[in-house]
Order: sequence, then structure tokens, then C-alpha cells
Amino acid sequence: MASSGRIQKKGLSKKTGKEDVEIDLIDYTEKEFHEERVEKIENCLPFKDKNSVTWININGIHDVELIEKIGELFGLHLLTVKDIANTSQRPKIEEFDDYIYLVLKMLYLKKGKLVAEQVSLVLGQNFVISFQERKGDVFNHVREDIKASKGRMKTAGSDYLMYSLVNAVVDNYFIILENFGDRIENLQEKLVKNPSPNILQTIHEIKREVMFLRRSIWPLREVVNEAGRDGMPLITKTLVPYLRDLYDHTIQTIDIAESFRDSLSDMLDIYLSSVNNKTNEIMKVLTMFSTIFIPLTFVTGIYGMNFKNMPVLGWKWGYPAAWMVMGGVTLFMLIYFKRKKWL
Amino acid sequence: MASSGRIQKKGLSKKTGKEDVEIDLIDYTEKEFHEERVEKIENCLPFKDKNSVTWININGIHDVELIEKIGELFGLHLLTVKDIANTSQRPKIEEFDDYIYLVLKMLYLKKGKLVAEQVSLVLGQNFVISFQERKGDVFNHVREDIKASKGRMKTAGSDYLMYSLVNAVVDNYFIILENFGDRIENLQEKLVKNPSPNILQTIHEIKREVMFLRRSIWPLREVVNEAGRDGMPLITKTLVPYLRDLYDHTIQTIDIAESFRDSLSDMLDIYLSSVNNKTNEIMKVLTMFSTIFIPLTFVTGIYGMNFKNMPVLGWKWGYPAAWMVMGGVTLFMLIYFKRKKWL
Amino acid sequence: MASSGRIQKKGLSKKTGKEDVEIDLIDYTEKEFHEERVEKIENCLPFKDKNSVTWININGIHDVELIEKIGELFGLHLLTVKDIANTSQRPKIEEFDDYIYLVLKMLYLKKGKLVAEQVSLVLGQNFVISFQERKGDVFNHVREDIKASKGRMKTAGSDYLMYSLVNAVVDNYFIILENFGDRIENLQEKLVKNPSPNILQTIHEIKREVMFLRRSIWPLREVVNEAGRDGMPLITKTLVPYLRDLYDHTIQTIDIAESFRDSLSDMLDIYLSSVNNKTNEIMKVLTMFSTIFIPLTFVTGIYGMNFKNMPVLGWKWGYPAAWMVMGGVTLFMLIYFKRKKWL
Amino acid sequence: MASSGRIQKKGLSKKTGKEDVEIDLIDYTEKEFHEERVEKIENCLPFKDKNSVTWININGIHDVELIEKIGELFGLHLLTVKDIANTSQRPKIEEFDDYIYLVLKMLYLKKGKLVAEQVSLVLGQNFVISFQERKGDVFNHVREDIKASKGRMKTAGSDYLMYSLVNAVVDNYFIILENFGDRIENLQEKLVKNPSPNILQTIHEIKREVMFLRRSIWPLREVVNEAGRDGMPLITKTLVPYLRDLYDHTIQTIDIAESFRDSLSDMLDIYLSSVNNKTNEIMKVLTMFSTIFIPLTFVTGIYGMNFKNMPVLGWKWGYPAAWMVMGGVTLFMLIYFKRKKWL
Amino acid sequence: MASSGRIQKKGLSKKTGKEDVEIDLIDYTEKEFHEERVEKIENCLPFKDKNSVTWININGIHDVELIEKIGELFGLHLLTVKDIANTSQRPKIEEFDDYIYLVLKMLYLKKGKLVAEQVSLVLGQNFVISFQERKGDVFNHVREDIKASKGRMKTAGSDYLMYSLVNAVVDNYFIILENFGDRIENLQEKLVKNPSPNILQTIHEIKREVMFLRRSIWPLREVVNEAGRDGMPLITKTLVPYLRDLYDHTIQTIDIAESFRDSLSDMLDIYLSSVNNKTNEIMKVLTMFSTIFIPLTFVTGIYGMNFKNMPVLGWKWGYPAAWMVMGGVTLFMLIYFKRKKWL
Repeated sequence: MASSGRIQKKGLSKKTGKEDVEIDLIDYTEKEFHEERVEKIENCLPFKDKNSVTWININGIHDVELIEKIGELFGLHLLTVKDIANTSQRPKIEEFDDYIYLVLKMLYLKKGKLVAEQVSLVLGQNFVISFQERKGDVFNHVREDIKASKGRMKTAGSDYLMYSLVNAVVDNYFIILENFGDRIENLQEKLVKNPSPNILQTIHEIKREVMFLRRSIWPLREVVNEAGRDGMPLITKTLVPYLRDLYDHTIQTIDIAESFRDSLSDMLDIYLSSVNNKTNEIMKVLTMFSTIFIPLTFVTGIYGMNFKNMPVLGWKWGYPAAWMVMGGVTLFMLIYFKRKKWL
Repeated sequence: MASSGRIQKKGLSKKTGKEDVEIDLIDYTEKEFHEERVEKIENCLPFKDKNSVTWININGIHDVELIEKIGELFGLHLLTVKDIANTSQRPKIEEFDDYIYLVLKMLYLKKGKLVAEQVSLVLGQNFVISFQERKGDVFNHVREDIKASKGRMKTAGSDYLMYSLVNAVVDNYFIILENFGDRIENLQEKLVKNPSPNILQTIHEIKREVMFLRRSIWPLREVVNEAGRDGMPLITKTLVPYLRDLYDHTIQTIDIAESFRDSLSDMLDIYLSSVNNKTNEIMKVLTMFSTIFIPLTFVTGIYGMNFKNMPVLGWKWGYPAAWMVMGGVTLFMLIYFKRKKWL
Repeated sequence: MASSGRIQKKGLSKKTGKEDVEIDLIDYTEKEFHEERVEKIENCLPFKDKNSVTWININGIHDVELIEKIGELFGLHLLTVKDIANTSQRPKIEEFDDYIYLVLKMLYLKKGKLVAEQVSLVLGQNFVISFQERKGDVFNHVREDIKASKGRMKTAGSDYLMYSLVNAVVDNYFIILENFGDRIENLQEKLVKNPSPNILQTIHEIKREVMFLRRSIWPLREVVNEAGRDGMPLITKTLVPYLRDLYDHTIQTIDIAESFRDSLSDMLDIYLSSVNNKTNEIMKVLTMFSTIFIPLTFVTGIYGMNFKNMPVLGWKWGYPAAWMVMGGVTLFMLIYFKRKKWL
Repeated sequence: MASSGRIQKKGLSKKTGKEDVEIDLIDYTEKEFHEERVEKIENCLPFKDKNSVTWININGIHDVELIEKIGELFGLHLLTVKDIANTSQRPKIEEFDDYIYLVLKMLYLKKGKLVAEQVSLVLGQNFVISFQERKGDVFNHVREDIKASKGRMKTAGSDYLMYSLVNAVVDNYFIILENFGDRIENLQEKLVKNPSPNILQTIHEIKREVMFLRRSIWPLREVVNEAGRDGMPLITKTLVPYLRDLYDHTIQTIDIAESFRDSLSDMLDIYLSSVNNKTNEIMKVLTMFSTIFIPLTFVTGIYGMNFKNMPVLGWKWGYPAAWMVMGGVTLFMLIYFKRKKWL
Repeated sequence: MASSGRIQKKGLSKKTGKEDVEIDLIDYTEKEFHEERVEKIENCLPFKDKNSVTWININGIHDVELIEKIGELFGLHLLTVKDIANTSQRPKIEEFDDYIYLVLKMLYLKKGKLVAEQVSLVLGQNFVISFQERKGDVFNHVREDIKASKGRMKTAGSDYLMYSLVNAVVDNYFIILENFGDRIENLQEKLVKNPSPNILQTIHEIKREVMFLRRSIWPLREVVNEAGRDGMPLITKTLVPYLRDLYDHTIQTIDIAESFRDSLSDMLDIYLSSVNNKTNEIMKVLTMFSTIFIPLTFVTGIYGMNFKNMPVLGWKWGYPAAWMVMGGVTLFMLIYFKRKKWL
């Protein structure tokens, strides 16, 4: 669920086995391609200063020692190492002397609940290191593209690789949003057909998830903008249109999330006023019944009195007359309701 | 309908026949005018570097290969080609080395529902290429102006043509807004005369469409502002007052949309409190009836008891006395309501 | 009424007779003063380059040909001519090569409804041309000041004249606001004394007018600020403190309008909760009556049953005992209500 | 009362007697101190260019001629003179060639109502002129400090004197806020103990006053900030930390005012939902009474029917059986309510 | 409790005994470590200009003379001394010639209530002086780190020490937030299970505390940002990444506080609509009972009338027929409710 109520600041993930951590290395130039599952991180070191583009992907960040060793080998600042291991970062970009560090949130659905996972990217001169909390398949697409030498992938440098990874995450946002869009549309139909009280709970839950989603994406906007603007030496000029495009996509996701929020607010309004309408209708029925029958019952009460001296009781047409009085009262009331437009 | 609940990011339009795509070429200088329906896009190429102004209008963007070919022939960046084919762009302006790319939303009503269509414009040194999703008649006005050599149209360069096209789209916004204005005024009248529950649904629907409209126009504001400010080499200085004027019109449309939103919010408030008032009135009627007749019925109940030893039942004037008691109670209640100002 | 629901973009005013347009010319230096009603606009031309300050006031802008001729004679840009004739401009200031064009909204009350009229001002080296939709008396004050050589009026240049005209319009805003202030105070008194449902309608109407007023003034803020800041060559440095003062006045009007909006929102809140209170009180009365009499009626019902074998009916003190039971129930209920604080 | 509903733009104060205006002159250097009540403003002139610091305090600004004379003697701009005499200024700072003009609002409570009074300060090379609407005691503290040669008072220049005067006004804000804090706390207690309808009125009144207070202080923030930032030649560099401190205090007052506003909004919410709860509870009582007794009364009605052929009436145990039926119904209802958690 | 309703501007703490104030001195270089409880502040003076890093921690700020003496000995500006003694500062950073003064709020829970305490830090060339209102244990962690020569602690300068102290305070915020997170989660569960009216009070209380917390942290954001940006000479360049990290943490705390606020607002909405639902259900029950039994009672009333000439009373099957009429009415009502979906 959206972790809005939970804080996990120093939240190093709690899994313990080292066997979970996977290190995948991909090394490529325009002509060559090398892929390898690496046992020990030290094996990656020879690729670091090689003139090819090297992508090291780490699945699992609970092995703090491993991250510290990577930090040592690739010259990462102590704070970067801490940030990678701590899964409660906001999306941000930080430029250091030799590398750029970028954090963002990968979102996916787990049993229908929105879950955010932290992805850390380190961009060096010839390499990109990516850290994921768990094994996922969002980056597969990028891997395929490299293998297939598709697009600019293999001719471009490590900065384009970094862009591709961020782009893959952002593309994934659209899938999540589409899922939300469907749920909201379903809700909207339900709301019209059968506005039960527990729909309210559902609306609030989805709204909370949409807000969580928006909060997760929002800072990325500024991150991408900064990357495109600041003229960092590690980002070549030819990347700028791509970053601009990425920026537009990020804005789009935020726009959609905000339109969802608006829709949900509207749905709350509609639900509440439909409840209100129902109460109103119930009131009307109650009032009509009461106001018609209360006088009638009063009439029967009168002729039910036991006074010895009630001439009316002895009259031959007394009983029919009583019915006529009651009929008159009813007619009067019905006309009154008609004029009040309650019928 | 406003596609607030739908996401169509990678939404290439789904039509399949190539026969739908129309390519219209207009080429003109101050003295000449040439109009042609082009079969193959290659036929346009000779006009590209000609010193005249060339306008190529493409109706239908589902033929991706065509767009890619245009991209190749006119030297468009890969991202621009993608953006043209993908109909979910936000309005934006992007300057490339040889051309300016501008996207905006054309709005029209289809069976009373607001629909947004994407219009892409590419401004080169001597040419403008416009891409529409469907054949429309918004640009007819511009075509007429060129033919008629009206205004600055034929003496000015390609940047003025681009301005004219954007201006045509913005002028169209006003027509849409006028339609909304009429619908809102009608609603307002209905609201006063006959506030039925389904008016609420209608208000929310129109509000959603107004918000959709506002979201479609809003980014254009910044786009036009940027075009007027940035001193792009493809935009001549004489165009600046025109862009400033265009900017004012865009702001005006946003202002109107916002005043609509305010009106609709007010209408919601009025509707809700009118419902509230009705409930209140119903309550009042119910309460008056109940509080008058409940004591009366109690009185009849008393004299309907069957105690053997009830001297009152034997009294000669018992029955009239009972009526007088009941009359007194009623009078008291009426005075009470009068003082409470319920009558 | 506030034209929030109306759009009049291309709204050239619809009067047709040319006889309505009045052209008034005032020409003055420190020592001389010349006033004239001009028949043909060409008669004004000799004054254009004269070293004196010339003020040409046009009442009525429906004669498009006249405005076009003025545009030609005084070298106005085509867009300026269009803007003058089109009464749906937002307040704005535009600097052209030879002149400054400024639009603002004159507000006045017509049968108790707020109406906005467009005033266009063109400031040239030695002249000011003002365009009003209708003949009005707001500028009379300025005319008097010139005649009376009051203040800096006659010694200062055309920019000071322009300032005076804008200032006259802004001063007029305060009068409008004072009128609104009185109406709001009246409403507030009514609200306390007699909160009828149609007060709600009135509050919403005034609120809508206040919002319209605010929207009409709001952009002027930026306009005046720009005039004072930009160091336009047509505006002399001695005018700066005056523009700063004008700016302060504009901010003041906006502040007042916003405080009105807040008051009206508060009034809505108060009205709604007073309605709520009333419902509550009605409920209380109904409940007390019902809960007292329903048990009593039940008691009478018991002794009204016709069982043959009901010893109680034969008792000597049965009837008084029934009264005592009923008295006891009533007492108990009253004590209960007392403790609930409903009495 | 907070004059939110009143406009007094051209509001020259209406007192007429000149005898009310008091002119107090204090002149001091590090070693000397001279205090004097001045009869005619001309008597102050010799002090103007003296190398000592001169403070002229004017109580009462209704004597326009006096202010005009001061303007003349001390070289004030016409607009400054107007602004001093007109009590509806927003707090602002204006730099002129020879002096700085600063307006701010002095707040005090008059019969429990918040009143704003305008204080104008003119800072020249060696002098400060202060204008108050009425005689007040806020500046006494400053006067004492000068006499007592306390702090930097006597060694610092006229700019420090000006700072001290503004500081005295801001210190006074805290006293006002403390008063509001107490009133809000009292209200909060009342709200918990006895939420009567007229508490709503009080909450709205205090809220209005808090908003008025906030509006009066808010622009001062920018004024002080500007004074500290702009490097005006009349303000020495050693004053900067003091202005920064003053700025912090101003922000603090605004913060407090905003937290008051939040508290009051919360109180409104609490009040409304407490009313709501009460209605709910009343409804519950009414419903329980009705639903218990209505069936019982129906039962008595059955056995009150006069059919000749009703064997049940002749039964020996008919009457006790009727009681048992009624007991059963009551029991059933009570269990039902228990399960619904209404009891 | 959150002191939202209290103002303590000139709030010098009121304890009187000097014995409460504790002065702790820690002096260290990379190799040496010296810790001492100091009796008189003068004893610290020799350490001031020593080339080692000196940390003087003062617990208790009510001894104004002591603070003044410190101000004198360490060359603090008069305003700094005042600000240290006055516990109502907003978080701020101020650069003076020889030192940087930083104020922030330490938050802790006292009997479940949120309390804010002011911490003042003075950073000089070789020393840091910290002032706390009371003895606390937040700084213990820093003390341990110095002793243990952990991290960069001992090799870095006084600016790193200052950073560590601020960091300790910010880390403490996360603990507070975690506590709030737990309380909110508990509330949420209660809200679903048993939405009693006093939950509303609790939600508002927590909301108020969250707002107070947010207000206390908010300005720190700007403070840390300024420290990292301004290139103050006392802050070395190697500290910048640490300050950036601190800035991110501060933003995180604010984000969490805001998500709490959103959750609480949602909870209020849910509570209110659950109350609404309950009223609605009660209404429904009442209406069903009334509308079923009122007609039945009317029927019994008819046959309870005492007319002599009522043939129906003499019929043999009159009584069962009456029951059948009543059964029919009941059946009709039940079907009606079924169709209305009330059952």
C-alpha cells in the first residue's frame, strides 16, 4: 500500500541472504557486445576505465557491504553510498566530481496495491551503475535495445544509457496510470448505478494512492529539468532534446495524476450529494405518509370516543359521512402535495 | 468526451487505410500563388528550398511511414517525428537547429462532447508543415486569406504563416467557449426554475469539460510567450506584436474558462443549498402536522378509554367540551408556530 | 450584469449611427488653452506635431472606419486599431516605436448592475488619444483640472495627462467599491435579522460581481507596474512617483475586492449554518412532542381496548390512576429533556 | 471594528479643531538632550540641518495645512504630503532624493475591537518626522530610551531612531496577538463545554479581525525587507542586522496570525460537526421512541376495534396476552437497537 | 502542547536558580580529546583561539547574565545575545563578521504532547557553542561519535561539528514523525471499527500538532539551503554535499508531515460521511416503521369507531377481513420498499 503512514528513514531492507543479490554486467561499443552475470563486484573493475560503455545492474540493495565496496571501487562519496542503501530518498540528482548520482522511484502494482521501489543510478565517464531493490523487468526493454543495436543506443555514450533507464521507468508510469484510469472509470460506473457507502472508502483509497503516485513523480520533474539545464560535463549536448522529451513525459504523468485527483474529488461530491438526495426522498415519503394518515387517524379517534351524548354516533349516515370526511382530507392533502411538487 | 479517464500515450491513431491521408501544398510569393493536392510527399521537395513560402498541410497522421519520410526529407529530429505521430503531447514549442516544432490542441465539439485533436506545426526557413489528425475546416480561413492576398499574408514570411495557423486555432477556442457559455446560461436558468437531481450530474460534466479545455489551453500560454520572447532566428522581429496579441488572446480564453469554472462551482453551491432548503421546508411541514395532530389524537384517545367510572363520559356537554379542548390546543399550537415564524 | 457568462471577442459595438461619435480636442501649453468639438478627425492633424500637449477624446468606437483613419493619421499599428475596436481586451500596455498603447476597464453601475467599458489610451510624443465606448463623465475632472491650471497639469507633458486619465478611472473604482461595501453591509444586517433563502441568491450575485470587478482590475496592477519600471522613452522620470502612487491605489482596490470576497464567503457560511441550526431546532421540537405524546397515546390505547375481562376498567379509581400514569410519563420525559439540555 | 466593509480612500480625518494637533520635538547628540513642545512648525526648522538627531512627532494629521507646510519646509514631494494626510495607505516604503518615506499601521484595541491607525515616518539626513492619527503611548518607550541614553540609541544616527519607532509598532503587534490568543483559548473552552449557536458568530468575528490584522501587517514584511536590502544611502550598514531582526519579528507576527486563522477554521469545523452530532442523537431518540411505541399503539388499536365477532376479546387471558405481545415487541426492538449499537 | 494559542515573544524562561545551568566543554583534534564540565564560562576562554575544535554546550538559557557574558567573551552581537535568550525565534541563519548564528527547533514528546525547544548554535573559526533550553540527550550521539573518532568527525573542522548537531536534531524529527505515523494508523483503524464522536476531537488535535510540527520545520529548509549555497567563509567546500544531504532530509520530513495532513483531512471526510450515513440509515428505519404502522393504526381506528350504524362491525368475517386488509397494506409497503431499494 502507499506507505503514507509509514516512515522508513533509515530503512535498510531487511532481507538477509546475500544469495539474492544479482550483479549483471553489460559492456558494449558500437561493434561489440558483452553480457555477463558477475559473481564478485571486483570482476567489474577492469571495465571501469575501458573505452566502451559499461552498465552494471545490481538487483537487491540490502547487502550494505557490497554497496560500500562498490562505493570504494568506483570512488563514490560516503553520502552517495548511504543514499543508495537507504530506500526512502526523494527523487534527486546530485553532481559530484567524477560522477552524477540520480535517484528515482519505480512504481508497480503488487496485489492491486501501489508499491514504490527506489532506483539509484550512478553515471560515470564510461559506465552506469543501476541499483534496484528487487529484480524487475522494466529494464529488460533497454537490454533488448542494446543487443539489437536499436536506435542510437550503441553509438551513443553512457549518458544516453542513463537517459534510457530513466525513460524506461517513466514509460512504466504510464502503464500504472492506465491501470488507475481503468479503476476510476469502473468506479464512476458503479457510482452511477449503485452508490453504496463502501464506494466512499474505495474512492478515498484510490485518491490516497494517486496522491502517493503524484508525490513520487513530482520531484522527478525538477530532476530531469536540472539534468537538461545545468550543462554538467558528463552529459553531452546531443542528449538535451532527449531530456527535454523526458521532461515533457514527466509533466504529462503529473498532469494525468492531477486530472485523476480532480475526477476523484468530483466523484466524492457526487456521492455525497446522491446520499443527500436519498435522505431527502426518504424524508418526503415519510412526511407524505404521516401528513395524510395523522389527520385520518384523528378523525377515527373522534368517533371512537365513548361520550354517552354524541348524537353523531346515532345518525344513520354517520359512518359513511366519516368516510367522506376522511376522503376529503386525503384529497386536500394530495392536492397540497401536488402544488408543492412533492408528487 | 473529455478524455480525463483515458491515457493514450503511445496512442498512434488506429485508422488503417492510407487513402485517408491528404497532402495539400500551397506555395506563394507576393505575386504568385500555387495550390496542389500532392500524391507523393517527394513532390513537395522542390519547393523546400525555393525562395517562396510553402505550406504543406497533412490531414491524418496514422501513416507513420509517411511521417518518417517527411522527417527524413525535411531533416526533422527523430523525437519530433515521434511527437508528431503520438497524439498525447502537451502544447509545447521546441527549437532545433533548422526548424521550430510547435504542438497545440485543436478543440471541437462532436455530438455535444468536447474533443481535442493534436495539431503539429514545423516552421522552417521557407516552409511550414502542418499535421492534423483529421480533415478539418479551421485552416480554411487562412487558405482564403492567402488566396485573397488579404492583410500581410502574402508579403510576410513563413513565420507569419505559422502565426496565422496558431491564431486560427485560438480563434476557434472562442467559438467553443461561446458554446459553453450558452450551455452554462441555460443550466443557470434551469437551476432557478426546476433544480432536479440530474442537473447536478450535468453541472459536473460541464465542469469536467471546462477543466479539460483549460488544461488543453493552459500550456499554450507559455508556448506563445516563449515564441515571442526568445529571439529565435526563424522568427522575425516584425512578428513580435502579433505574438503578443496572440498571447493576450490565449490569456483571455483561460480567463473565460476560469470564470466558467467559478460559475459552475457557484451553481453547485446554489443547488446544494436549494436541496437543503427543501429538506428544511419538508421538515417544517411534517413537524407542524405532527405537533398539531398528535395532542389532538391523544385527547380523542382519552375519551375513547373504556373505564366504567368515567363521569366525564356521562356529562351532557362532554362531547362539545372535548371539541373545545381540541380547538384550544390547535389554537395554541398555531400561535406557537406564528411566534417561531414557521408560518 | 457581470458578463461572466458571455463572450464578446470580436464584439464590435453594435450601434450604427455615426452621429453618436463625438471627437473632442483639447490643446494646451503652460499658457494657452484651446478646446474644440471636432467634426472630422483630419482637423486634429495640425495639432499632432505641435509642441503643445494635445488630447483627443473619442466617445464611441463603433465607427470602425473612423478608428482606421485615426490609425492611419497617427501611425498606429494594425493590431492597435483592431484592439481599440474590439471591446473584449484585458487591461494591457504595449510599447510601439512611436507610441504607447494602454487599455483598461472603466467600471460603472447601470440599474444596480456592474458594467465594464473599455477605455483605450494612445500616448504619443505630444498627444494623448482616448477612446471610450460611450460618453461618460469620469474624464470631466481631468478636463476641469486642465482648464483651471490646477496642480502640475499644464506644466507637465503628455505622459502626465495619460497618468491623469488612468488615475481618474482608478479613482472611479473606489466609488464602485464603496457602493459594494454598502450593499454588503446591508446584506450582513439582513442576514442577522431575517435569513431568508433568497438572501443566498443575492450573496452569490454580489460575489460574482465582486469577482468580475477583481478580474477587471487585476491585470491593471501589472500594467501600471510595467509603465513605472520599464523606462520607456515616452515616460519621463518625474512621472515615476506618480505611477508608483497609482500602483499603490490599484493594489488597494484589489485588496478591498478580496476582503469583500472573504466577507461574502463568511456570510455564506453563516447563512448555511443558520439554516442548519433552524433544522436542528425544528427537529428538537418535533422530537419532544412526539416522545411526550406517543407514550401517552399508547396509555389511552390500552384502556381503550375492548377485552371483556379487564378488571382495571371496573376499578373505582382506574380513570384517575390512568391520568396519574400519564402525568408520571410526562414528568419523566421533561426531566429527561432537561438533562439532555433540550429545554 | 475591522473596517473591512468600509472604504475611506480620501479619508482625511474629520476632527476640526487645530488645538488637537501636538508637535513634540526631541533633539539629541551623544551628549546633549533637548525636548520641547513646539507651537509653530517653523520653530523646528533650525534643527533640520543641525548635526544632531532631531525627532519631530506630530499627533493628529487632520490639519492639512500644517502637513503641507511641513512638506514645504522639509522638501517633501506633493504625493508624500497627500499620503500622510490620507489614512488609507497600505504599508510601504518610498525612497525620494532627500528622504525616505515609510507608512505602517499601528494596531490597538478600542472597546475590544481592533482598530488600525496610520503612522507615517519621514527619514531625512539628520531628522525623523513621525505622524500619528492620535496621541498614543507606543512611542513613549523610545522617548524614555533616548532620555536614558540606553542601548545604541544616542550614539546611532537618525536611521536607528527610525528603526526604533518601527520596532515599537511591531512590538505592539505582539501585545495585540497575545490578546487574540487569550480570546481564542477562551472560545475553545466554551466550544467544548457549551457549543451554542452564537459561538459561531463570535468565531467568525474574531476570524475577520485576525484576517484584518494579517492584511495590515503583511505588506510591512516586504517594506522591512526592502529597507534592509536596497542599500539606500540614508540607511547605514550597521543598521542591517537590526532590520533583519525586525524582519524576523514581522514574519513571526504573520506566522502567529496564520496559526490563529487555522485554529479558528478548525473550531468552525468542530462546531459544525458537533451540531451535526446533536441532530444525529436527537434523530436516534426520536426513532427509538417511535419505533417502540408505534407497534404497541397498533396492538392496542387492534383490541380496541368494535367487531361483534372478535372471540379474542372474550378470552379469559386475552388482556394479559395482549400485554405479553406488547412486551415481546418491546423486547425485540430493544435487542434490535442493541445490535445496531444505538443504545 | 503545541503552543499555537500562546505567544511568548519576550519569553525568557522563568526558572531562577543558576545551579540548573550546565556548561560542558569538549575540545578535540585528530589525536587529542578533552572533556570537562566547566564551572565558570571564563574557563572556556583559553580554548577559544586554540587550533583545536572546541564545543561548548550550555543546558539552560534562563541565566541571562551568563549568556551576556558569553556574548562578551566570544564577541557576539547584541541581537544574537537577545535571540539566544528569547525562545520564540523562527529557525534562521545569520552571518556576522566573525561567526554564524543558527537557530532551530528541537521537537520532543512530553506526556504524549508535542513540545518545541529552541536550540541556538554559534559557529566560530575553531569553536561551536550550542544552547539548549533543557538538558536533553539528542546530542549524546554526536558526543559518542567524537569520542569514538567515528566517521569524519575528528578530522573535520568546526563546521562539520555544527552540521552534526543540526543533523542530530533533524534525525530526531524522524522519530517524532514515526510516533505520529503510528498514532494516525491507530486512529485509522478506530475510525473504521468504531467511529465515535470523540475521534473527531482526536483527529483535530493530531492535525493541529502536525501543523505545528510542519511550521517548526518549514523555515529550516531555507536555513539549510542558505548555508549550503551562500559560500560563507566559515563553511568549507567539503561540507556542501553534507548540507545538501541535510537539505534533502529536511524536505523529506516536510513531505511526510504534509502527507500526514492529507491523511487526517481524508479521515475527517470519512468520519463526517460515516456520520451522514448513519443518520441516513436511522431515517430509513424510522420511515419504514412509520409508513408501515401508521396506515395499520388508521385501519384499527376505523373499526374502533362507535357509530351505531356500522354494518361491517356485525359481519361474521369482519375481524378476519380487517386483518387481511392490514396484511395487504403491509405487503404493499414491503414491495414498495423493495423497489425503492430500502430493504
